[in-house]
Amino acid sequence: MAGYVSDAVIRRLPGYYRYLQELEESGEKQISSQELGKRMGLTASQIRQDINCFGGFGRQGYGYEISKLKEHIGEILGIYKDHKMIIIGAGNIGQAVANYANFPKEGFDVIGVFDNNPNKVGQKIGGMTIRELSTLGDFLDQKKVDIGVLAVPAKDAQSLTNLLVEKGIKGIWNFAPKDIKTPEEVASVNVHLSDSLQVLSFKMTYDKEDDK
Amino acid sequence: MAGYVSDAVIRRLPGYYRYLQELEESGEKQISSQELGKRMGLTASQIRQDINCFGGFGRQGYGYEISKLKEHIGEILGIYKDHKMIIIGAGNIGQAVANYANFPKEGFDVIGVFDNNPNKVGQKIGGMTIRELSTLGDFLDQKKVDIGVLAVPAKDAQSLTNLLVEKGIKGIWNFAPKDIKTPEEVASVNVHLSDSLQVLSFKMTYDKEDDK
Repeated sequence: MAGYVSDAVIRRLPGYYRYLQELEESGEKQISSQELGKRMGLTASQIRQDINCFGGFGRQGYGYEISKLKEHIGEILGIYKDHKMIIIGAGNIGQAVANYANFPKEGFDVIGVFDNNPNKVGQKIGGMTIRELSTLGDFLDQKKVDIGVLAVPAKDAQSLTNLLVEKGIKGIWNFAPKDIKTPEEVASVNVHLSDSLQVLSFKMTYDKEDDK
Repeated sequence: MAGYVSDAVIRRLPGYYRYLQELEESGEKQISSQELGKRMGLTASQIRQDINCFGGFGRQGYGYEISKLKEHIGEILGIYKDHKMIIIGAGNIGQAVANYANFPKEGFDVIGVFDNNPNKVGQKIGGMTIRELSTLGDFLDQKKVDIGVLAVPAKDAQSLTNLLVEKGIKGIWNFAPKDIKTPEEVASVNVHLSDSLQVLSFKMTYDKEDDK
């Protein structure tokens, strides 16, 4: 990739990927920066800037080749990498993640679900049997796991993070309503469900544009 | 507010609000743009720019008064407004939203949950009885509802959106894995769960910074 990429660009990448995939599925071959911009709520020049940011593509006057650009962005996002993922916490969010149909397609493969509730252990979600949380350490000793999904109460988030880090996990996707801390070599994203609701609330007052 | 505010700033507002709230709860009174920047993963000058964007605050050399700044951002986000909210779809996501403890505190008040599954109708989630989806139109005729939460399959998202719009709803928070279209006067935010997973995947490859 061509040097520094800003956080704002990184956050737009999944949107680019998603839209290009839709275009590809509908049989489109080429798209101009104008059209792409219209869909993404950005100017054509911003689109060109973004795309230059991760290593130039497209030819003046020809626009972008959809499938190539999609593949390139997918590679940057690392979504063809076959990430092995485990879910800790089989509540609503844990179950939603376990059942999310598109993850396998996108290279995220859930290989284990854990909970400490005896009523849940042994039940099935997303085709998997929920395991007892106390077996998590052994599981991580035996299997290569790339990503841990935390869908647990706030009070358990950091101690579970520490265990995952100790066992060599590389990324944590945290849904607990408490931001976690990881050492520099372990990536993490804290999801705040209500952030996008607050953005909606803002839009209801100050503008009426769609969130594109 | 002071004129145009970029999408990137809007998306950062919930993070500011959340962090300022934590600081307030821990008894802090003042914060410098340097400290705030460190936490938000931004430079001090970017912090000052952001905050100027929504109408200047703080004094040179004194930093920001935490509770005032928090309140101001909360007002911009419209989160003290007491939004009445309904949830359509009582699956995992619908239930997660219904049970989210912080929404009432933040001024989002769930007043109805709907589903078309006869096994779910009549059950309780988040203290509310799930209503039959076919009664949604009547409900909206009788009650003032500000926000509709769509937690339904992709195929039902647009037709339900159309009904909500027809009944005068002002904002739609869409979790269906298909972007919805609304007329200009109705705000909408499409949530894509997997976007933040893709950002994590990116970070696992290209940098190891926390998602702040």
